Amino acid sequence: MSLLIENISRFVDLDREEEQELLDSFTFRNFSAKEMLLEEGEVCKEHIFVVSGILRHYSIDEELAEHTLSFASSGWWAGDMYSFLSQKPGDSYIEVIEDAEALMQTRQKQLELFDRIPKLERFYRILIERSLVANQQRLMENLQLPAEERYKRFLERYPDIKYNLPQKDIASYLGITPQFFSKMKGRLLREEY
Amino acid sequence: MSLLIENISRFVDLDREEEQELLDSFTFRNFSAKEMLLEEGEVCKEHIFVVSGILRHYSIDEELAEHTLSFASSGWWAGDMYSFLSQKPGDSYIEVIEDAEALMQTRQKQLELFDRIPKLERFYRILIERSLVANQQRLMENLQLPAEERYKRFLERYPDIKYNLPQKDIASYLGITPQFFSKMKGRLLREEY
Repeated sequence: MSLLIENISRFVDLDREEEQELLDSFTFRNFSAKEMLLEEGEVCKEHIFVVSGILRHYSIDEELAEHTLSFASSGWWAGDMYSFLSQKPGDSYIEVIEDAEALMQTRQKQLELFDRIPKLERFYRILIERSLVANQQRLMENLQLPAEERYKRFLERYPDIKYNLPQKDIASYLGITPQFFSKMKGRLLREEY
Repeated sequence: MSLLIENISRFVDLDREEEQELLDSFTFRNFSAKEMLLEEGEVCKEHIFVVSGILRHYSIDEELAEHTLSFASSGWWAGDMYSFLSQKPGDSYIEVIEDAEALMQTRQKQLELFDRIPKLERFYRILIERSLVANQQRLMENLQLPAEERYKRFLERYPDIKYNLPQKDIASYLGITPQFFSKMKGRLLREEY
């Protein structure tokens, strides 16, 4: 069974025909490391389901510093939600960190599918609810936790890819400089032993 | 037409019977300023639609500092989404800032209604999509904008209540101390004249 169907079947039951219709609404794509899937000023035309590899969603501030919003690996979804939902130009970037395979669905295909198969709208409702919870938790972490605690939450959130990510990207996810991140990890290691 | 029906009718068309069924699934409540609607460790049993007044959603860190996640006034929704969706104890607080009237709906009533009136599941999907976008934008602002810019975004986001909120709550929304907030506002005023 495909990873996408597996992902969706945890929440709603689809019959064979519906599964096929769902799969037909996606396009399969291969991406190489360092490829850009989205840049500032572009419309995020497709919602991305990652089959393999790693993507990074980030923004760049006026001083050209990068801020990582999230990572996505096998079984995760990615997209600039503002841009995808409104189909207006967004202000964030999605890059490939590790060669990736992905299934891509346009907003139009998605909305057509919601009309034909209401169960898929239910799945998507649940998916978005979960994203909202994850986002609220990340916002709370950012507002109230010190960097070390944020790092522990990061390790819990990304158990499968935490050792595959560039140090500078983890630092920009945590909102600290690579230098501070390196010092902090040194301190945490010394505490462990 | 009630404010709730008006809010929902912007996205889906309901007939008279559906409107009544929707209204019947909510409980109308009155709250006084300073009342607590939710505290850490409690389950957020109901999703809250604010008819009038102002609510504040916040968390408290280990050093007892408050962090305001969001405000909600007339026509806005409030709730600890992690707790409401999972029906497990949450770690945030909702307090009444200004005497409020609200419509409250339990998760169970909500899910029953989704089964009976799929259009309401569609409305809720759209509502959650918009919350997710607002949350992603707030996270980005927090990661990358200086306090002054965050304050400008705050003013744009809450045009109708920005002058009704306690200064300390705005400061805790911006992630700065009330002292720094007061200095910053002074500076912004001087720049204007």
